[in-house]
Amino acid sequence: MAQGIIRLQAKICAWATAVGKKETEGPLGSCFDLKDPTDKFGQKTWEAAESEMQRRALALAISRRALEPGQIDLLFAGDLLNQCVASAYGLLEYPIPYCGIYGACSTSAEGILLAGMAVTGGIAKWACAVTSSHNCAAERQYRTPVEYGGQRSPTAQWTVTGAGAFLIGGKDEDGVPITRGMVGIPQDSGVRDAANMGGAMALAAADTLKRFFQEAGTIPDDYDRIITGDLGYEGGAILCDLLKAEGIDLRAQYSDCGQLIYDRDRQDVHSGGSGCGCAAVTLGGYLLPRLWEGVEKRILFLPTGALMSPDSIKQGRTIPAVAHLVELESRTLKGET
Amino acid sequence: MAQGIIRLQAKICAWATAVGKKETEGPLGSCFDLKDPTDKFGQKTWEAAESEMQRRALALAISRRALEPGQIDLLFAGDLLNQCVASAYGLLEYPIPYCGIYGACSTSAEGILLAGMAVTGGIAKWACAVTSSHNCAAERQYRTPVEYGGQRSPTAQWTVTGAGAFLIGGKDEDGVPITRGMVGIPQDSGVRDAANMGGAMALAAADTLKRFFQEAGTIPDDYDRIITGDLGYEGGAILCDLLKAEGIDLRAQYSDCGQLIYDRDRQDVHSGGSGCGCAAVTLGGYLLPRLWEGVEKRILFLPTGALMSPDSIKQGRTIPAVAHLVELESRTLKGET
Repeated sequence: MAQGIIRLQAKICAWATAVGKKETEGPLGSCFDLKDPTDKFGQKTWEAAESEMQRRALALAISRRALEPGQIDLLFAGDLLNQCVASAYGLLEYPIPYCGIYGACSTSAEGILLAGMAVTGGIAKWACAVTSSHNCAAERQYRTPVEYGGQRSPTAQWTVTGAGAFLIGGKDEDGVPITRGMVGIPQDSGVRDAANMGGAMALAAADTLKRFFQEAGTIPDDYDRIITGDLGYEGGAILCDLLKAEGIDLRAQYSDCGQLIYDRDRQDVHSGGSGCGCAAVTLGGYLLPRLWEGVEKRILFLPTGALMSPDSIKQGRTIPAVAHLVELESRTLKGET
Repeated sequence: MAQGIIRLQAKICAWATAVGKKETEGPLGSCFDLKDPTDKFGQKTWEAAESEMQRRALALAISRRALEPGQIDLLFAGDLLNQCVASAYGLLEYPIPYCGIYGACSTSAEGILLAGMAVTGGIAKWACAVTSSHNCAAERQYRTPVEYGGQRSPTAQWTVTGAGAFLIGGKDEDGVPITRGMVGIPQDSGVRDAANMGGAMALAAADTLKRFFQEAGTIPDDYDRIITGDLGYEGGAILCDLLKAEGIDLRAQYSDCGQLIYDRDRQDVHSGGSGCGCAAVTLGGYLLPRLWEGVEKRILFLPTGALMSPDSIKQGRTIPAVAHLVELESRTLKGET
């Protein structure tokens, strides 16, 4: 039952990523599929560029299994723009039943879990999860237009310009197995600083991980990697501290997509990358190929989402957050577990 | 497979509604559970009032089956506010795994379908779907604060102040059976007028209904009622015309939650009610009790959602829309079908 661990019989069978200039120049730059140094992807607005990244990523992911859009049974998509319009417009040309989701920066995991549940339950043969973020679209919606040159605080993170699309199929398909998942229970951090998202989200990640380890009976050593989505340097350190106080030492396996995607010294991103696209493109560009090849055998992928809005912050509310967990195994294990 | 009809083995076992003043004064006023003539539900802001309606509606729905929140396996919730904060803050006190969804005014059906899928697939024993809208919160986000007294066009609709919560359990529980569902494929209407949502959404409703009738082999006469969520007077007329041109005459069974919830002559709502809350409270307050008692035997519930944002309209984009379908049967049929 889903109060705890969800057992899934599904695989991530194909995927694709699209990113902008800064991501291309980062340490993972060579891993991504589609890149545009203008960040515009041929569009007139940043919002339309974000939609276009989703559209192209999904097209590429589907084509990699030689499928047609009409063969996809369900599409789970969402993003950070008001009313999730990056997904709505970006995926409009696809004749695929569409479930809009909103998990803030945890959207990639929420989509993969829901797609995995639909496939496991026999409701879909193929389901897709798509998400994105765009630095310039996010900045002008959440903070100020980048052209203003607003100053950033040390705990601030850099919203990734990127989109990821994931094709999920059944256990008999070739792919990276999704073995278990856990839907997060929102946690209120008490943090009111919208420039410290990592700090606001660490508690949610700690809660989900702790519940997972307790019920699964596993420990960090059972995994090659335990990776959060965009806690960044600030939130990642808090997460490790929180769990250490509970007797769970995560540090040997821990990494964070927001720490991996940019070069901290060279790229001036302060506390690391963030946004729905951060976890999605790191999963697609870096983690899934390693699981496909067997470089890593078993990982926990755990994106977190801050469930606030600019208005709720102005109204003095604290920042709640949620963390969804996806357990992934190497394609090469072939049922050894 | 979900490109078409989804067969569900689930029931809506309990529900609750919360509404504001105008809804209480409307034709369905006596049907709702929780009412506040101030529209504030004890809160300082309209946004917090919307959250509070969700919180109270979910508490009541769960208590009606004498369940504790800890017994609910999954919660699907979303709303119209930027970043879906009505749901995020309203449901934060519940220790229930949380999947945020965004379907605009189709959210009630999306949540019920996903909850129904989770129960059908054995992933959840109990799952809940919650959604809301608040007139004053929606007006100031989408248009102008109500205090400004902005003029409304004839095709404009009135966002319902209301929240609905639905508890979905398995086929062996007592409740209103959810027999089949269909996830909508987004349709682009070409409409750019954000004051004509009904016109923008009618095409999506027509597409889903046509696909459903074709695959199910049913006709409108097989149902006591075919009800859309908030097409209102304008969109409802367009839907009937669109389907009549396809040889499907819907008029004898057709109604719309946005037409039922207010008195058109007395309440000055122009083209009818709208918002996530419109379909949700009409389902909970009016339709489900009739299905529970057997007054109606079989209905199609079909809320539509416009997938735009105020920004996308300002950027000159058209309004895409989606319509999700839920087939509901009377509790009294007891497997006669």
